[in-house]
Amino acid sequence: MATLKVSDSVPAPSDDAEQLRTAFEGWGTNEDLIISILAHRSAEQRKVIRQAYHETYGEDLLKTLDKELSNDFERAILLWTLEPGERDALLANEATKRWTSSNQVLMEVACTRTSTQLLHARQAYHARYKKSLEEDVAHHTTGDFRKLLVSLVTSYRYEGDEVNMTLAKQEAKLVHEKIKDKHYNDEDVIRILSTRSKAQINATFNRYQDDHGEEILKSLEEGDDDDKFLALLRSTIQCLTRPELYFVDVLRSAINKTGTDEGALTRIVTTRAEIDLKVIGEEYQRRNSIPLEKAITKDTRGDYEKMLVALLGEDDA
Amino acid sequence: MATLKVSDSVPAPSDDAEQLRTAFEGWGTNEDLIISILAHRSAEQRKVIRQAYHETYGEDLLKTLDKELSNDFERAILLWTLEPGERDALLANEATKRWTSSNQVLMEVACTRTSTQLLHARQAYHARYKKSLEEDVAHHTTGDFRKLLVSLVTSYRYEGDEVNMTLAKQEAKLVHEKIKDKHYNDEDVIRILSTRSKAQINATFNRYQDDHGEEILKSLEEGDDDDKFLALLRSTIQCLTRPELYFVDVLRSAINKTGTDEGALTRIVTTRAEIDLKVIGEEYQRRNSIPLEKAITKDTRGDYEKMLVALLGEDDA
Repeated sequence: MATLKVSDSVPAPSDDAEQLRTAFEGWGTNEDLIISILAHRSAEQRKVIRQAYHETYGEDLLKTLDKELSNDFERAILLWTLEPGERDALLANEATKRWTSSNQVLMEVACTRTSTQLLHARQAYHARYKKSLEEDVAHHTTGDFRKLLVSLVTSYRYEGDEVNMTLAKQEAKLVHEKIKDKHYNDEDVIRILSTRSKAQINATFNRYQDDHGEEILKSLEEGDDDDKFLALLRSTIQCLTRPELYFVDVLRSAINKTGTDEGALTRIVTTRAEIDLKVIGEEYQRRNSIPLEKAITKDTRGDYEKMLVALLGEDDA
Repeated sequence: MATLKVSDSVPAPSDDAEQLRTAFEGWGTNEDLIISILAHRSAEQRKVIRQAYHETYGEDLLKTLDKELSNDFERAILLWTLEPGERDALLANEATKRWTSSNQVLMEVACTRTSTQLLHARQAYHARYKKSLEEDVAHHTTGDFRKLLVSLVTSYRYEGDEVNMTLAKQEAKLVHEKIKDKHYNDEDVIRILSTRSKAQINATFNRYQDDHGEEILKSLEEGDDDDKFLALLRSTIQCLTRPELYFVDVLRSAINKTGTDEGALTRIVTTRAEIDLKVIGEEYQRRNSIPLEKAITKDTRGDYEKMLVALLGEDDA
């Protein structure tokens, strides 16, 4: 369930492009106008606005936005205006770079997208970086992280609902043994998490709970807190089975951390506004007893705040 | 360069469907008529013939062919009539089954197809088997074979010509060290072979030859002949750099083996007739001093022989 609010009838792309142009003209920039347009257009509509803008003014809208805007607001607008596949490719590429490296973001992109969305990210990666996503992930990670992350970003999971309960029972048993021995990096654990369909993984973890009396994430809490690979494994399992809970945790730490983590906040809002931000918002409130929108407005300012609130569908547009 | 001969003007799909129907009617089957149609239609044309046949007779042409034909001829017709993605999915699935298991076929499908062709195979695998290709490959292989094969079948290589010569030099050095220490299953060797673009791999192996005075395949010959993983690694490198030479080797052993290996012969001819069978044929003759067509006719009989010869573009149609 998306939070994005798009009115049934929107202006022609050329009109939107023209309006955006006026927002840039003259002294200063009309951020409100930019938000009122871009924060209320679907991915497809944003795409044709970019095309119209390019045809009319011979410029890439993103470059102009980059020039005109700054800081967190700029980052939110740029990430939002990109096509989802391009956006994921950019997030993944940043996650392989030294100063912005993040195994968590790589895992998040790999596990919370559908197979087609992940494929679009890989295709956009080719076009944008002249390399394959897995090439960069493999080159910039090592050891167990490489094994897990390369397997996750190269997966192309079956997305049907069919599950094999016999297999679920076998693999629940296998996973249980590995966890008991604290072999969290075991090849078969990684194989199951990176090749099985999400429905099959879910069946395996239901079976795990039935046969071993506790949820797998509970079992994994017994590991060492500083074990970064174990933490990534836990997030992987959460992303594959209950992604909304994972996103709630990310938002919570982004907002509650001393000094907001705008990077994470912007990433989650822009990548989920069109997908499941509504469910995430509901879970957020259940978990933190404060509406997500309120938590965000308490923690952000100015145009950046307005943009996030608009994507949450909470502005009065 | 394909060997498939398709005349510029072919009958309407419904006419072809009707002709195929007559080939099944009455006593016995008119194999010549089947060959004259199917062996001279492109993948796209075969696809619409199947649709027309289904619309007109309410049956899947493949099922009827399966009923009407037998043995090697049937196998050649069925493999040929499938869409390339479906065909590769079927070949890969067979290669994970106990009685027909073949790491070589899995590697061949993963390394000699373009990124889009391999993607189509993975998509067809979803549709046909309700599972992912990598799920089955991972489940049915172990150890080093699993590491290599799962990485190869999940690759989505960048296909541009851009190469990074500094990287090529670094990775040539790295590969050389691993081979010197006979660490053929090293994680970085597998990483390079399964994630880099073919152009980059080629640049790395050129650099290897320049800096270390011999071709990489030559260095790999020093390993133990019974080392099956090493043999698969050699084939992988050949498929990624000079696939036509790999196919010549497969054809050669299929034909020269005491008792022809029809499975391999049919696989290569049906999967390459529309792609590069002409170049393979030329290399075959250079290597074996006998035209491929002659070598095949010396070794095959009847309708099976006629079908292969037609796909080689050597029948008088």
